[in-house]
Formats: sequence, C-alpha cells, structure tokens
Amino acid sequence: MQSSTQTHTDIISSERVEGTAVYNKAGDRLGSIDDLMIDKRSGQIRYAVLEFGGFLGIGADRYPLPWNILKYDTSLDGYVVPLDKDTLEGAPHYVGGEPPVYSDDYGRSVNRHYGLE
Amino acid sequence: MQSSTQTHTDIISSERVEGTAVYNKAGDRLGSIDDLMIDKRSGQIRYAVLEFGGFLGIGADRYPLPWNILKYDTSLDGYVVPLDKDTLEGAPHYVGGEPPVYSDDYGRSVNRHYGLE
Repeated sequence: MQSSTQTHTDIISSERVEGTAVYNKAGDRLGSIDDLMIDKRSGQIRYAVLEFGGFLGIGADRYPLPWNILKYDTSLDGYVVPLDKDTLEGAPHYVGGEPPVYSDDYGRSVNRHYGLE
Repeated sequence: MQSSTQTHTDIISSERVEGTAVYNKAGDRLGSIDDLMIDKRSGQIRYAVLEFGGFLGIGADRYPLPWNILKYDTSLDGYVVPLDKDTLEGAPHYVGGEPPVYSDDYGRSVNRHYGLE
C-alpha cells in the first residue's frame, strides 16, 4: 500500500497503513490492517488491528497487535509479524467493527499474550 | 465521532479520529480530520490532516496540523485548535488525496508555522 513517494520519508499516512497486508515470517498472508488504536493524549499508536476471515469485512475477526511487533517489508509491500498460527489462535480478538473498550486491563492482556509486559 | 464506549479509555481508533470535526477557540467549525501522518518507526502520530473546502472531499484543501495542538472537547465532540483564520491561511497545505513527501524539511516548515520547533 506504499507508493514510491512514501519510501523517501519516515512518515506514512494512516490511510495507507489501513488495508496493508500482514504476513508471518514464512511469508503466509495472515490478513490486513483494519484499524489503528491510538493513545489519545500522546498520539502514540499502541495497536494495529489485524483483520482476517469474514466476507468483505463482515464477520471478520480482529486481533489487536502491539505496534512494535510489526516490521514493514518493502519486498512484500506489507508488514511481517513473528507469529505462528498457534500464537494468533489464542490471542485476544473480537468480531465486528466496533472495538471493545481498550481498558488498561485489556491492553495488558494483549501485551502479555505477545510477551510484552 | 466518539461513542460512549470510547470515553472510558485513553485509547481511540484511527477510524474514529478520521472524520472528527475541528473547531477554533471561537467555536467555528474549520473542517474535519482526513488523515493521520505517522512516524513509521516509532508509531508516533506527528500530524493530523485538517480537510476543508471542496465537494465531497474532491478539491479539498488539506492542512497538516501538529498533533500536539489538537485538544479533544467532549462537549463539541470534536477537536479544538488555537488557530485563527490568518494563521491557517498562510499555513502549509496541499490539494488532493495524495500527500506530499513529508520530508524533514516539510515537517519542519509545518512545525515552524505553528510555532513549534
């Protein structure tokens, strides 16, 4: 989702991040970024929400991933995450467009799942 | 653009920020947030892009505003920025959907305009 004009800079548009593909380290496409969860006060992105399954986004599962674990790979034109299927299957997730309340507890449960505390 | 489920937490979705109205301190509606410009590496939002004018977004002017100058006002259900019309008229902006390259120079010119260096 990046154009050539974006590779010259370290700044990227949220509109380009949303929809970008996410792969595991084996190169399998896990899904795409649906949404970004932002700390209101600091403006820091805490989670990128991985979407997969469903039909045209309806009924799709959404998995908040800590922003830090996503690495952009220019050759894949997408993000790579160091996750296997098992890690993702047991991960916190929700269905539908309206995110749950990202309380401190919820955030901690996400971070804990990915080994970040 | 905030629902009641969002007010219990300091985390907000990019999908909710995009489209949120922006007001000046006099309560005049300046436009709405079209896009967020993100530091790829850190995940820090640097600019919220204010859109106004045009027709259904076509031909609209886009003004990158330093994230720090936006304050969310729950009573307005929008952001308030301490900007008068003159400050905005002379500000860096572009037309159309594709953002320019946010080089260091461009970023500095934006920050300088808003008195942040």
